[in-house]
Order: sequence, then structure tokens, then C-alpha cells
Amino acid sequence: MNAENCSLAEKIVSSSYVQQGAQARRARENLVRQLFEQKKCPEIGWDDMSIELLLQELAVMDSNNFPGNCGVGEREARIASRLVANRHYNIGHGIGRSGDITAIQPKAAGSSLLNKLTNSMVLDIIKTAGVQSAASAFVVPMATGMSLVLCMLTLKQQRPDARYVLWPRIDQKSCFKSMVTAGFKPIVIENKLEGDELRTDISAIELKVQELGAKNILCVMTTTSCFAPRVPDRIEEVAQLCAKLEVPHLINNAYGVQSSKCMHLIQQGSRIGRIDAFVQSTDKNFMVPVGGSVIAGFDKKFIEEIGKAYPGRASGTPSMDLFITLLSLGVKGYQQLLKERKEMYKYLSAELTKCAEAHGETLLHIPHNPISMAMSLRTIPSELATQLGSMLFTRFVSGTRVVATGELKTVQGYTFHGFGSHTDNYPCTYLTAAGSVGMTKNDVDLFVKRLHKVLERCKKTGAAETLEEDTIET
Amino acid sequence: MNAENCSLAEKIVSSSYVQQGAQARRARENLVRQLFEQKKCPEIGWDDMSIELLLQELAVMDSNNFPGNCGVGEREARIASRLVANRHYNIGHGIGRSGDITAIQPKAAGSSLLNKLTNSMVLDIIKTAGVQSAASAFVVPMATGMSLVLCMLTLKQQRPDARYVLWPRIDQKSCFKSMVTAGFKPIVIENKLEGDELRTDISAIELKVQELGAKNILCVMTTTSCFAPRVPDRIEEVAQLCAKLEVPHLINNAYGVQSSKCMHLIQQGSRIGRIDAFVQSTDKNFMVPVGGSVIAGFDKKFIEEIGKAYPGRASGTPSMDLFITLLSLGVKGYQQLLKERKEMYKYLSAELTKCAEAHGETLLHIPHNPISMAMSLRTIPSELATQLGSMLFTRFVSGTRVVATGELKTVQGYTFHGFGSHTDNYPCTYLTAAGSVGMTKNDVDLFVKRLHKVLERCKKTGAAETLEEDTIET
Amino acid sequence: MNAENCSLAEKIVSSSYVQQGAQARRARENLVRQLFEQKKCPEIGWDDMSIELLLQELAVMDSNNFPGNCGVGEREARIASRLVANRHYNIGHGIGRSGDITAIQPKAAGSSLLNKLTNSMVLDIIKTAGVQSAASAFVVPMATGMSLVLCMLTLKQQRPDARYVLWPRIDQKSCFKSMVTAGFKPIVIENKLEGDELRTDISAIELKVQELGAKNILCVMTTTSCFAPRVPDRIEEVAQLCAKLEVPHLINNAYGVQSSKCMHLIQQGSRIGRIDAFVQSTDKNFMVPVGGSVIAGFDKKFIEEIGKAYPGRASGTPSMDLFITLLSLGVKGYQQLLKERKEMYKYLSAELTKCAEAHGETLLHIPHNPISMAMSLRTIPSELATQLGSMLFTRFVSGTRVVATGELKTVQGYTFHGFGSHTDNYPCTYLTAAGSVGMTKNDVDLFVKRLHKVLERCKKTGAAETLEEDTIET
Amino acid sequence: MNAENCSLAEKIVSSSYVQQGAQARRARENLVRQLFEQKKCPEIGWDDMSIELLLQELAVMDSNNFPGNCGVGEREARIASRLVANRHYNIGHGIGRSGDITAIQPKAAGSSLLNKLTNSMVLDIIKTAGVQSAASAFVVPMATGMSLVLCMLTLKQQRPDARYVLWPRIDQKSCFKSMVTAGFKPIVIENKLEGDELRTDISAIELKVQELGAKNILCVMTTTSCFAPRVPDRIEEVAQLCAKLEVPHLINNAYGVQSSKCMHLIQQGSRIGRIDAFVQSTDKNFMVPVGGSVIAGFDKKFIEEIGKAYPGRASGTPSMDLFITLLSLGVKGYQQLLKERKEMYKYLSAELTKCAEAHGETLLHIPHNPISMAMSLRTIPSELATQLGSMLFTRFVSGTRVVATGELKTVQGYTFHGFGSHTDNYPCTYLTAAGSVGMTKNDVDLFVKRLHKVLERCKKTGAAETLEEDTIET
Repeated sequence: MNAENCSLAEKIVSSSYVQQGAQARRARENLVRQLFEQKKCPEIGWDDMSIELLLQELAVMDSNNFPGNCGVGEREARIASRLVANRHYNIGHGIGRSGDITAIQPKAAGSSLLNKLTNSMVLDIIKTAGVQSAASAFVVPMATGMSLVLCMLTLKQQRPDARYVLWPRIDQKSCFKSMVTAGFKPIVIENKLEGDELRTDISAIELKVQELGAKNILCVMTTTSCFAPRVPDRIEEVAQLCAKLEVPHLINNAYGVQSSKCMHLIQQGSRIGRIDAFVQSTDKNFMVPVGGSVIAGFDKKFIEEIGKAYPGRASGTPSMDLFITLLSLGVKGYQQLLKERKEMYKYLSAELTKCAEAHGETLLHIPHNPISMAMSLRTIPSELATQLGSMLFTRFVSGTRVVATGELKTVQGYTFHGFGSHTDNYPCTYLTAAGSVGMTKNDVDLFVKRLHKVLERCKKTGAAETLEEDTIET
Repeated sequence: MNAENCSLAEKIVSSSYVQQGAQARRARENLVRQLFEQKKCPEIGWDDMSIELLLQELAVMDSNNFPGNCGVGEREARIASRLVANRHYNIGHGIGRSGDITAIQPKAAGSSLLNKLTNSMVLDIIKTAGVQSAASAFVVPMATGMSLVLCMLTLKQQRPDARYVLWPRIDQKSCFKSMVTAGFKPIVIENKLEGDELRTDISAIELKVQELGAKNILCVMTTTSCFAPRVPDRIEEVAQLCAKLEVPHLINNAYGVQSSKCMHLIQQGSRIGRIDAFVQSTDKNFMVPVGGSVIAGFDKKFIEEIGKAYPGRASGTPSMDLFITLLSLGVKGYQQLLKERKEMYKYLSAELTKCAEAHGETLLHIPHNPISMAMSLRTIPSELATQLGSMLFTRFVSGTRVVATGELKTVQGYTFHGFGSHTDNYPCTYLTAAGSVGMTKNDVDLFVKRLHKVLERCKKTGAAETLEEDTIET
Repeated sequence: MNAENCSLAEKIVSSSYVQQGAQARRARENLVRQLFEQKKCPEIGWDDMSIELLLQELAVMDSNNFPGNCGVGEREARIASRLVANRHYNIGHGIGRSGDITAIQPKAAGSSLLNKLTNSMVLDIIKTAGVQSAASAFVVPMATGMSLVLCMLTLKQQRPDARYVLWPRIDQKSCFKSMVTAGFKPIVIENKLEGDELRTDISAIELKVQELGAKNILCVMTTTSCFAPRVPDRIEEVAQLCAKLEVPHLINNAYGVQSSKCMHLIQQGSRIGRIDAFVQSTDKNFMVPVGGSVIAGFDKKFIEEIGKAYPGRASGTPSMDLFITLLSLGVKGYQQLLKERKEMYKYLSAELTKCAEAHGETLLHIPHNPISMAMSLRTIPSELATQLGSMLFTRFVSGTRVVATGELKTVQGYTFHGFGSHTDNYPCTYLTAAGSVGMTKNDVDLFVKRLHKVLERCKKTGAAETLEEDTIET
Repeated sequence: MNAENCSLAEKIVSSSYVQQGAQARRARENLVRQLFEQKKCPEIGWDDMSIELLLQELAVMDSNNFPGNCGVGEREARIASRLVANRHYNIGHGIGRSGDITAIQPKAAGSSLLNKLTNSMVLDIIKTAGVQSAASAFVVPMATGMSLVLCMLTLKQQRPDARYVLWPRIDQKSCFKSMVTAGFKPIVIENKLEGDELRTDISAIELKVQELGAKNILCVMTTTSCFAPRVPDRIEEVAQLCAKLEVPHLINNAYGVQSSKCMHLIQQGSRIGRIDAFVQSTDKNFMVPVGGSVIAGFDKKFIEEIGKAYPGRASGTPSMDLFITLLSLGVKGYQQLLKERKEMYKYLSAELTKCAEAHGETLLHIPHNPISMAMSLRTIPSELATQLGSMLFTRFVSGTRVVATGELKTVQGYTFHGFGSHTDNYPCTYLTAAGSVGMTKNDVDLFVKRLHKVLERCKKTGAAETLEEDTIET
């Protein structure tokens, strides 16, 4: 309510009460002022009322909501269904322009503000989470894998001869697919087994670059967050190598923002070597619905190039979700979530160790993986083990995976041995579980209890229950 | 409410009233039954209550909403902010799997149903709108331009040697960018001026294929919906040529679903020639917020290949928006919108003709463009003309464009003469306006009234104005 | 967004776009300004976005939403469930204070504004609807009947000896109950049959006043809107009589705001005689959920007395519903609804006449009732006739009533002959239907079609279907 | 989703996933089953999704939402504004019928279920909270004071000669007003000062009954929850007296449900004496918006009589708010709230004692008041003391009251000495604060901190301040 309307209100109800209401209003306006001034995630999260007020203020500034606006273009953000309009807070113009996904839209000052602020808040959070030297970041409404495609296509414009991507093996389809879809030949760098861990073979990368020629190589694509027993790549060493050999370095940091270790690796890598961009999922790190990722890097200009490579306007939903979530959590709230995650990771690890021991198994020793862990399944016949995942799923445990060794699988025309285990022949079958952001003690307790029951059942009956043939992948 | 709960309810309030309530409930369940059986857009649109009931039913079937579920994966669709959860109806798993954007998700039966149904409804609507032989369609949460990239990258896997895309010129950045981003060299086919219209030069295409060699050409990329004075490409002839020369044919049908003419061209093209895929925006055709497009085609297998090329899960928002909108409109509602659009196109055309004549201008004769029209600006000095667009925008007219001839512009390293006019040197400066879906009579009346005033002002003052003076009538 | 925040926004996105957004915002603020200045229902209805913006602005001004507020009272409008908070737009303090239901609340400037504005808008609408001399009106969150109780209790304070209420018979329970609950003895004034109509017996009232003594009479309670074949009371003559005899006059105008005839009667009555207060339902006249009524009158002071008689704070929901609805409709929208109602009344009348004639019945001649009509059921055996209502209800016709003559019914200890028909012995059994606000042509068509079928069935079978024993009252 | 639709869904997505979704659905249906079977507040609160699902199921059962319904009555629960429809979950028929506010509505099975279940849940909660022998309870959409009016009017029908209400003085306007509005003469029974406490004078009541004659007395109206230094009435002794003298006994238990002491008094009173009804506010006890109260008692038939005395249908909002809140909290959640309240009461008491001592004041010794407390203001000049309340309010402290002694005030024609202090001449000026349900530690800390500052300021300046200088810390 502006000053004039407040004055009028004072003629209707008592002046002093209106003034106190107006003072309370200013407290909320100050939140907006601080946000606009600092362009950072607020220290303390906002209440929902303040968030919705701002969203409505932004909506009011978009042309599709202008009273008396007339639209004679082909794209006017008209919304047919009020349910749809409601769920978007009447904001419809998406983000970016045909020339640049991070550009300001003349028709949509509100949407543009939302987009700009989200990008600067997310950069702030990335810094806070450990990559202090990050120079630029933006939200793109595509999966991590598709965002990696966009990064590679942008790199391609600078390296027209490049045909290969060097890829320390990580058995995750979308990652592999991203290289193939972008039109490159993935060069698999097999991992080294060190103890129970699968780790990057740095010298194999160096040899491969020499063999293929640096200019024929688009980039090395490394991974931080991953399923145990693989661990985050040796980012620092790869970054040094890439700097030395003048090969770009792209990092798939899918759910690594939630882990200070993953973020530290990236920060260190950038300090001592070369990292062109790192990409992370919005849903896995910030507890928003699936749909977006954040592309970030240390060279503002290159990150802008990626933004300019996206042809056309795009969905504003992942940005809006992140905008709301970051305002709602605040830096403190997000840090609290990360702290709880770390505790849950430890708790899960401890509980799983107990469970493993009770069944003659072990929790594999994977100290370098800060999120995922794996428990051996040596005592369970492999034909039973493979059913464990679906047995757990029908018991409302989601997200666990059983990986049997030695299976052949063809992905995009490439054949992998032991696909899922990140190596041709891991020493044992195992089951993975992750301590990821938002996990609660109740999740852990229920999981371990149900796992215990299922393991008992497997041993007693010697045969899995009749279940439908589905295997549950995550 | 299931039968058991209804029986219990009958003990609390009168049995006959509960039974009548249950009967009303069945009427809504029948809507769902028909949708699931037929997998088509319902003939008559649903009321919002029925839509929200179904959305909640679907949400209940996703694992993140399972009571007693415990999640130990890295992606559990946890949602931190309740505002975000609300706007997604608690649906968070997005669409697709790492292997395929159209795949079913084990963790999310509800999301998967929503996605499958949306895709089959949108295929149904595409058929209804004129492309009866379409065999497959899916919604992808990316702009039209980025979807064209995905189509080209998929084609590339079949044509590893291809380096060129033949492109009948259309001065729209995201379209041009899509070819460059996908890694191809655009070969511009200049349009022919026929009367006031700019039309496809078929023989130039044929010559170019012969010159470059069919196998080096990824595809011809044509356009239907476009700004006047360009008109939709000669799709039938290009399709015949592509069939003959064995070159793929990709169509940018950005906002063409709303026009029976555009859809007819595609249908005819597919009947007598080759069309590999056609891509359309969801927002421009279906009045949803910006963010998605529909990739469709006549060969089910090829369209599936495109779906499989997207690496990773993706945002479910464009699908959900379309799901809601198509259920809400129904076939009849959508047809009614298209009918009204056609009438508004005619009305806009008539009113603009009158306005043009009153100012010594003409409405250019562009009979082949069913959506966009252009009015000459011969009597206005060009330095004034270029300000007309922003003068109109500050008067709350959005979507009109003034195109001056002869300007040089560099896009992605390519230099264009007269960029914006689809040709090096169009005979006159002009202003465009479109009769697109959702436009109202009020839009037209306001536009023409304001245009009239602005034109008068230009003539009187001979100079652009201080804008603040104007008041906006609604 | 205040000026300061707008300036900051201009540093984030382009200044001119922000300014245009700000200009659009001012258009909405102007709506609020006009409302606050004029305190009248706006001529043109607001869009939902403007309404929700204002509601949120008002909520911000209530103490329960003050950032940093601490509450140490016994009533702090804390809301436990966010679903509840949402449905009330976070507004929780209700209306009024212990001393006065129309009073301003120090803790709740926003709620108080909402309440004051609603009352002045509703007064404006009452004037517009025909009672131009109305001086005061307020919304009270009670049924019409309970509001009549409050009016009578307030009158009682001025007339401590009064024991009787004179009541031209209207067979509607809550009306009758209101007198008994308020502690008075109803004196039934039987109606006179004039043609098919039941009308007020003015001389009987006069005789009764003389017989009982004016000071022993609390008031005459008349009725406007009612079920045919009763018609609105002769308000003008009663008002004249009350003025002459110095007896208060209370009018039950339950759903009379929607009828210009009912409103005209009240206006005329006030001009030439005495009317102390008239009470109308919010749901029946303004299409809001059940729950409120409007108490209005011509003497501001007396209406205030009634407001002061309500002990305690009260629900703000009926006021908020009306606030939203009146802003949404605007005067024009409401007048349009009334116009359509009048047309539907005529259409219903015409269709029902046809239906009656087809079955050897007649539409009773009740020209003085502008809303309700009645069709004779002379050809149907009475035991069948009484089942017609429930037969129609199970066919999803709601709101019709079949009234058989001569039944005895005891209400609050009083025995009535022919209860439901407003007279001891109406000449025939009949069925009523009403053309009330919001009725659509589809309602009429469905009703007449279903009535036709049911009548046919009755005649063919000679017996009603087996139905549960319930009778459907409205 | 019914079984048939689930089967159809299995043809669209994998059968096993649908079945798991259906299993999750059944878990929610079981919640509804338990609610319908037991008609009690669930032990564990429901999540919002389950609550909204049930509300929508109920809405579907109301005639205004029947697909194909046609309404020809005068009250069809049509809702003009979708904002209004949304906030009521499309439920519009209110509660009750003309004959009875607790009756089932034929047109609204869903609303009726909601109403019945709310009433039985609230009875369950009243029992749980300490009045185990309560036999009946219902929610009425009126303030406590107006509900007391309704109770008195119902009693009046049984005691036609009664003219007086005996009222142990409680200086709260709406309570006093309720007697006057109901048409009775309040007979004030002055309190006795015992230590710092003001307590019921039992013998004065007995004397008054003998003086006026039992049959001339409608009832004794006692109070439990009240502002210190008054304490809850001696309910047990009054109840015994009423039993002995055959005088009805009505209890104003406004915010007493939250206190086990108040509830215990009522339970004991009913066991050893006479209590006809006790009335409590919904907002103050259950953290819902202002608007409803619960009328409860030990004689089912008499409580039903009160329900039957309300003439007309009434707002369903207070019932819906309570329905949602009780489902959301569950018994455990509500008990947790009560436990926290008790702790906060103690904490407030301790902190206020410290503050009082620091300023040479004392926390009055009021051990019998379990909610409200009072701190002396002996050292502050009285002209300053009276400004303390508003000074605190402008510092965003709400709910505290400063009571100066000896003031004269006229309420409804009755003149009170020392109004506000419940006695003619309390020994000192004081400030009250309450530890009521929902209060947080932060509320207490902020309050005491601000009180401290204000007291300091009063002493330093010796004069009230210009308020604007202060800044509000949160």
C-alpha cells in the first residue's frame, strides 16, 4: 500500500493503527530492499508471506498482467487455464530471449528480475558452499545431462576439430549419453581399484591426451558426486593436467553442492589448474522438483557464452522454484540442511555397519565418497541379491541399488562390462545407499529395519519372494 | 472415497444423501476412466475440480508422497518449500529417466501417467488440428530452438558426415542459433519476393543440395509460422525434394498448430514427401507459460530416438501445464479458440486496412501468411519509424515490430543484410502484428486506436515525443 | 514495490522496463485509492490479482503478521494450520470488538479496513438495488434468522414490556423460530387468498394491535421474498400502519436484494411509513457460501445499536467473502447478474407453463411474487405428489418443493394447518420453483426436462418408484 | 482412483508401479476409515495432503458440485467468485438446517459429514482435555458471548418467569453484554480479595438467590479463564449451590480448554453439582481465526435444545477451520501444544518476576489463575502507567493490559467502579500478561526485553515519550 493509500486508510480506521500496520509493511519492504541491493541469498530465510508478496509484485510488472495491455504479437504469455496461471503466480514469459537465456525481457521486467536475482543468489550459495572463486552461475531449465550437452556444444565452437571427450568412467547413463548426444566419441578412462575404492587413473588420462592429440579432444569430463564404491574424481590433479595440456575441463557436480568435500575439490582444482565449467542439479542439491541445473564457472565470459548458446526462451519454473526455496531457507537454513546431511551420513554409515555385521557383511571402506556408501552382499547368492532392490522398493524403500558384478550392458552402442559398478569386475556384489540432503533420522531407521528384514528373509527362505520382474533403478 | 468409507459415512449422515454424493463422485471417476481408456483429449473440457482431483490422485502415487516411504537415494523428490510443493501439486520427480525422456519412472507412477497421457493428448490435438497422419509426439521442457538442436543432434547420429543445414531464410535468432549451437553450418537460402510476399526458393534448395552433396547435409530446416511479409515455406515442394534427394526435413512449426493452414501444409508434405520431425512451442499454441515444445513426426521410431537422446530426467512443468490446459479446454474448447483466432485475424486485418488507408499506407498483400500481417510505413521518415515500436510499447501495446530495411546485423558470426525482414532489401519499412490464439476484440481495438494516435503524433510533430505525457486508456 | 525498491530494480534490469512495470502497478494502486476514497463498490469489477494483492496488503497490517511482534494476550490470532491460514489469507482477528461488532480493532488495522469497506460497499449495493434511502448496513456472520433474533433483542431494550410479535404467516421454520428463540410469542396473522395468491391481511394486523395494545407488541415482522403462492407482504401498508400505531417494523428480506420489486417495496415503505430494520442473507443474494446476513435500516443510530448488541468478536469470513465478491463483480457485474435473473425468471415461467399444460396442470397465477412460482399438481394423486420432490432430487434437481395441503405440523409448540403452504387449506397441491440469482438457462432446461419425465412416470405407473422415505426440504 | 481406473492405469504405465501407488493410496484411505469409524480426533495428526484430499472428497458430495445438477431453489450454494470458492474448498452450504444447526443437510452430504465429524472430534478433545464426562458438544459460528446469549435464550424457554442472571463479576464487556442482550438483568456478585487474588463470594450468591427467588433467576453465569488478579470461579461450590437451589449454571470457559485446571474445575463441578452448559472460544483454544465457539454440556438433550434454538443455517467456516486443525494436530499434537503452553506460562512467570524485581515491583501472587498473571505498577505514576500499554503496543507487544484502579465506567447502562480490575478498588495499578497456547519462548523474551526498556524509560524521563525514536528489534 503506497503512502497515499495509507493516508486514505487513516480516514477509515484509526490513524495510529494504520501507521503501525504501515511500519510492519516497511519491515517487509526492507527485506526486498536488501535483496535488491545485495543480490545475495538472505542470511535468514523469509516467511512465505513475504515471498508471495514479492512474487506478486514481480508478476504485476510483467506485460501479460498490465491492466489495459493489448497484445498483438505471437507470444503474449496469455494463460488459458487459471489453475496454470495460479501455479505460476501469473508469471508466464519464461526466462531469457532468443539471443541469450540470461537476457532481460522487455515484456517482462518482473520475470527478468526474478531470473537475475535467482542467478546471483545461486552464485552466492555456490560460493558459500565452498567454491569461493566461482565467478558466474546461471540456472538453466534442463537436466544436468542436457546442460552438459550445452556446455560441450559451446566448447565445440571454440574447438572445431575436437571429436573426443575423455571420461573417467562413471556408470550413469545420462552422463554417458550427454557426450554421445553432443556428437562426441567418449573415451573411457577406467578407474583404479584402491582398497575398496574406485579412483581416477590420472596417468591414463595423460597418456590418452598424448595419444589422441589435445586439439582433437573437446574436454575431460570428470565427476564429483557419485555412487560408491566409486569416489569423486581427483579433480585437482585432472585440473592441473588440463591446464598443462590445454584441454578444457568440464565437471559433472550433479549433487555435489551438498557436500563440502566435493565443493572443496572444485575450488582447489580451479585454484591450481583448469576448470571450464561445473554443472549441478537443482533438485538434488536444493530440494526442488526435478527440472533444472546450475551451470557455473570461473570465467564469466565463457559462462555467458554457454547462456548465449541456448536458442530461445525457456521455462522459468526451475528458477522460480529456486528463487522461492533460497529465499525461504536463507543461508542459515541451507547451512543447517547441509549440517544435518553430514550428521545423517554418519548415522546411516554407523547403522549400516551394524546391520552389515549382523549379517556377515561389511560396509565397504570408501572414505573419499562423502555421500554414497556401499555394503557388501557376499553371503547372498547373486540371483537373490539382484532382487533385493525391488524387494526393498515394494517395502517403500526408495533409492537403494544392488549392483551385481560382471554384467554386460550396451549403452548408446558402447558395451560395458559390469555396468553400474564403474569398473569391469568389482570384487563383490553390493548395495548402495546415500546420505543426501533432506534425509531424516526416520528415513535411516526405517531403511535399516526393512533392510534387516529383507536380508533375514533372503537367508531363511533361500529364495526371494515372488515379485514382478521389474528391477528398480534410480 | 472408496466403497468402505462411503458405507461408514452412511452411518454418520443419511444413507440416501451419501449415495447421491457417491453417484456424483462416480460421474467424475468416469471422466478419468474415459481419459485412461481413450488417452485422448476429452471432447468437453473438465471443470477445475475434476482436474485438481486427478492431479492429487496422481501425486499420491509418487514415492515422495508415500506415507512411510524412506528414501536413501540421491534423488528423492524431497521439496524444501511448501510454496514450491504446492505449485507442483506435490509432484516432484519430473519426467523421463536417464535413458529416455518419455520413459516411465518406477518411483513415480503418477508423474509417469501424467506424462504419458499428456503426450497422447497432445498427439490427439495435433491430429485434430490438421496433421492427421502424425504418428508420435512428446512434450519436451525446452524452447523450440533447443528442441530443434536435439532433433539435429539425433539426426547427426544417423548422418555422421553431415555438416550443413539448408535453411530458407527466416530472420529469427533462436532458429538460426539452433543450427550453430548444434554444431552445423547454416546455408542460407534467400527468399523470393513474389508480390509483397517472401516465399521459398525451391530451385535454390535443389541446387544447393547438388552443390554440397546430400550426405554432407544434415537436413533442410523449413518454417511455417513466421512474421509477414515472409510466408510459410513451400512445405510440400520441399518435402518432395527431400524425399527425392534423400535429405532429412525438419520443420519449425513454432506457433503453427493454431493455424489450420500451417497444419495442412505439414499434413500434405508428409503425404507426398519427407518430413522427419516438426517442432512447435507449447506456450504459443496452447496458452501456457513459456517453457516447452512438442516434437512430433510421422515415424514413431525416429521420434522415440529423439526422446532417447535427451540425457537425464527433465522438468515436468510444461507437461503438467499442458495436461491441465488440455483437460480444461477439451477438444471443443480448443477448436473454439482456433475459430475465434481466425475471426480475430480477419478483424485485425480489416481494422488495420482502415487505419493504413487513413494514413496513406497499405496493408501489405500477404495472403499466404495466416497469422501475421504487415502494414507499410512509407510515409514516416525511417528515423521516426524505428521509434514507433517503443512508442507503442510504452502505450501498452506489446508484440508489434517495426522493421526498417537494409540494416546490417551479425548473428553468431554471420552477417545479414536487412535482418528482421527475411531478405536483403525489402521494398519498404513496415510494422507487423499478429492475430494469434487468445487475442480478443479488445486487443485489436486498443491496438488500432493507439496505433492511430501514434501515427498522427508522428506526422504532427515530425519528431518522436516525450512519452510521459501520454495517458493510457484501457 | 515502493519507489526505493523500484530504483534498485532499475539497476538489475533495464530502467525503462521497470518503469513500465511500475506504471502498471500504479494502475492497480489507483483501484485501491478509488475504493478507499469512495468506499463504494467499484463500477467495474476487479481482476483476481488486484483483489489478492489488496487482501495481502491488508493481512500485512494485522498484528499477527507483524514481523517481530510478540503476543502476550489470550487472543493473538495465532493460526496452527497453514491450510487454515491460507484460506483466510493469514487474516485471523475476525471483526468487531467486545463492545461492538462494527468497531475497529487496534490489533488489526487490515481486518478493520476490510470490515469497514465491506459494510460501506454493501450499503452502496443495497442503495443501487433499490433502497436508495438506506442509511446504514453491516454484515453480521449469522443466518438471517439469528440476525432477526438480534434485531428483536435490540428492540426489546427499547420496549421492555413487549411480549408479542405480529407475524403475517410465512411457513418457514427459521423465521418462526427467530421469534420464539428471542423470547416472544408469535401472533400469527393469516394470509388472505386473492386469486391464486396469498396476501397480507392488513386489517387483521390493525385489529390485533388494538386487541393486544401497541406497547405489548415488539414489532410486526413482515417478509418480502417468499415461496409462491405466498407473495411479498404489503410492505407499504404495514409500514404506514406501524407508523400510525407506533409499532416497530422488521422485515425479513432474505433473498429480496436480487429482486427490484422487493427492494422497491422496502424503499416505498420507508418513504411513507415505518421500517426499523430489514435483514437479508448474503449467500442467497450475493452468491457466497452460507453464513452471513446484512442488517440494514434507515436510522443510522438504531442500526448501530444492533451492532453494539452483539457481544464479542465475530467471524470475518462472511465479510471477506462479500468483500471479494463485490470487488470481483463490481456494480456492473452485479447488475448484469440481476438482469439475467429476471430473464431466467421469465424463461422458467414460460417453460413451466408449457410443461404444466402438457400435463393438464396450470402454472398458478402469482404475479406479485417476483422470484418463486408454483405449478398445480391437481392430476397427481396426493400420495404420489409428495414423492415428486425426492424423485426430482435423486435426478439431480435441487430446490424444488412439493406442498400438499392440509397437513398438520407442530413447530416450537405451535400447531399449523397446511404447514408449508402459508395458509390452512390451500386449494391444491403444488410444486414450487424459483428463478434466483445465478440460475442458468441450462438449469431451467434440465429441470423442466426432468420434471416432464417424472410427471410422465407418475402417470404411467400410477405409483412412484421405490425411494427412500426422505423428503427433501430446502 | 477407483479399482477400475487403477487397472486402466496399469495399461499405461507398469502394473507394479501403479499397484504400489494404489497401496500408498490405501494408506490414506485408511486414515479416513479410522476417522469415520471412531469419529474421534486422530491420535497422530494427518499431513496436509490427506486433509485436502478428504476436503475435496467431501466437496464432491455436495449438490452445488454435482455434475449435471440443476438448481431451482432460492439457495443453491452458487459461488460467484472463484477466490471465494477456493477458500471454501467449493463447500458452500454451511451447516445445519432451518430447524437445527446440528442437523444433516440433504443437499450437502459432504458438508454434513464435515460438521458431524467436527462436533464429535471436538467432544473427544474436550474429554481428553479434562472434562471426561462431557456428553455433547457442537461448534457454533458465533462469538463466545453470542453463544452465551443463545444458551440463555434456550434456558428462558424452560424458565419463562426468569429475569435475572447472577454473575460473579468479571470485567469483560462481551460477557456482561451477553446477559443484557439476552434480555436479562445482571445481578453483580462482587469478588472477594484473598491475598492478591479476587475470588468468588459463594455466600453472596446464595443470599442473592434467596432474596430474588430461584424461579426468577435464569442462571448463575460463572467464568473460568480470566485476567489476573481475578481467578477462575469456585466452580465446584457454585455447581453444588445451583444443584441445591435448582438454579441453572452456565460457564464461560472462553479460553479454558487450554488449561487442565479450568477443565478439571468443570469436570469436578459436573460430578458434584450442576452445570447446564459451558462455552469456549475456538480461536483462543485451538488457534483458528476468530469466529466460533463450542457449546458443550453433560445433558445431551439440553445441548441439542440449544442447537435447535439457532434459527437458520450458519457459516461452516469455524467448523471447517477446526476440522482441518484437529486433523492436522491430532491428539498428540494438541497435547504437545498444551504442554508447551504450561512451560511457557512458567517461563513467563519467572522472567516477569525478574523484571518486576529489577524495577521495584512484584509479580502478584495469583496461584489460582493458570493462564494470566499480573505485575504491580506501584512505582510508576498512574498517569504514566496508563500509557504503558500503548507504548508497548507501538513496540509490537500485543495483548498486555495496564489496569489502573478506581476508574468509573458505564457499560450498557450499568456503572462499574474500577472497571477492568474486577473489583471496585484493587490495591494497586498493574499490568497483565498471559501464557496462552501457541506462545513461544521468543514471545516471552521479546516481551520482557521491551517491557524492561519501557519501564526504564518511564523512570528516566518521568514522562511518556515521542514514540517514533524507537526502533523495533526482532
